[in-house]
Amino acid sequence: MPLLSATLDRMSTELSPTPRSTIQRSKNRAVTDRAALYGVLDAGLVCHLAFVVHGAPVVIPTGYGRDGNTLYLHGSTGAQSLRTAAKGAEVCVTVTLLDGVVYARSIFHHSVNYRSAVIHGRAVPVTEREAKLHALRVLAEHLAPGSWDYTRPPNPREFAATAVLALDLTEASLKIRAGGPVEEDEDVEADKVWAGHIPLRQEWGEPAPCTLMSAGHAVPDHIAARAAAQVGALP
Amino acid sequence: MPLLSATLDRMSTELSPTPRSTIQRSKNRAVTDRAALYGVLDAGLVCHLAFVVHGAPVVIPTGYGRDGNTLYLHGSTGAQSLRTAAKGAEVCVTVTLLDGVVYARSIFHHSVNYRSAVIHGRAVPVTEREAKLHALRVLAEHLAPGSWDYTRPPNPREFAATAVLALDLTEASLKIRAGGPVEEDEDVEADKVWAGHIPLRQEWGEPAPCTLMSAGHAVPDHIAARAAAQVGALP
Repeated sequence: MPLLSATLDRMSTELSPTPRSTIQRSKNRAVTDRAALYGVLDAGLVCHLAFVVHGAPVVIPTGYGRDGNTLYLHGSTGAQSLRTAAKGAEVCVTVTLLDGVVYARSIFHHSVNYRSAVIHGRAVPVTEREAKLHALRVLAEHLAPGSWDYTRPPNPREFAATAVLALDLTEASLKIRAGGPVEEDEDVEADKVWAGHIPLRQEWGEPAPCTLMSAGHAVPDHIAARAAAQVGALP
Repeated sequence: MPLLSATLDRMSTELSPTPRSTIQRSKNRAVTDRAALYGVLDAGLVCHLAFVVHGAPVVIPTGYGRDGNTLYLHGSTGAQSLRTAAKGAEVCVTVTLLDGVVYARSIFHHSVNYRSAVIHGRAVPVTEREAKLHALRVLAEHLAPGSWDYTRPPNPREFAATAVLALDLTEASLKIRAGGPVEEDEDVEADKVWAGHIPLRQEWGEPAPCTLMSAGHAVPDHIAARAAAQVGALP
């Protein structure tokens, strides 16, 4: 992460069976616990999906949902990202949660507190009706918990217009940085300036009703609960 | 974005001179104004940098800074991302700000409010001493405004250990979605359920002092001002 520094949080075993999902830099920030991976994926709202077009990388933000060790992606059947990924091309999906900015005594050791999961693999199209419906529910519940049962389900046209992909979560890496600066002993001993960090958090605002809705629709419980919940909280 | 829907915000001219930076999907969300691009880049804190390794995409979060029509990236000289990009390979840099979740009357038209800038190009290493110092200052001031003049500057070892890249912002696209749901007339007319959106915003917490600092260091003005400022506010 920016203005590199090194700190450690925790570390355990497993997760990364391949060289590319083995963290090379800041290894002490690598977290190799699958539950921690799921925790970050469940706390995020959107991911960044990268794919290759004519040899060049493209990365776009998109929604996702997780069920067990599977990550679901979706989009219009016409979207370049979905069409590319659906052909079995390699993709990379990254979910990043920003937790703060670290102010060190030296400019070099400034840093960012964050949790970031990086998944590598080939996505598989989900086309069988029941499996696709399940995946859409997982995607919808990640974005808007409670909406699947509350709102009108997809009609055949909408169902057909949406492409769904499944990505296995096996090949993944996870980095977590938290806390204050880690820096040179001589800067700490000199004790010349303020050092520390400023936490950063996401917060929901008040639900804003659609202007086309008639009066008298109270905010339903599942939406009120969402707005009252913490976003992407640290575990 | 997730659970596709269509809405429009604003639109003007310019920005995208190439097919790949011409938005194909949700064209009504494309914003083609360079000032709007700069606004999103200046409001973000980290970007997602994508590059290609052995034909497969990799995307990682990293810091950045903008000066005019140039985006600076940096990292350890040993980092795979920097080494790959420094060879003149194509990169893609995406900055995304999440502004809320849109609750529609149909599951299909659920969506996300967001601002997202996507930059394509080949990064150029910045190695000349004065140019590199300038770039490092831009990067530091983006992450931690005021820190460059307040803290210890890079020593020769730190300066040499940091690689800096410059990416021209010419080939870029921008998407912005804001507001409530846009959906089927019949669902709006049926008026069966609550519809609207929940805004999402980032907020700074209280500055947390480093435990190794002696007592009596007050939080300096530039850090107090940062903590009191809005994060990534809508323009």
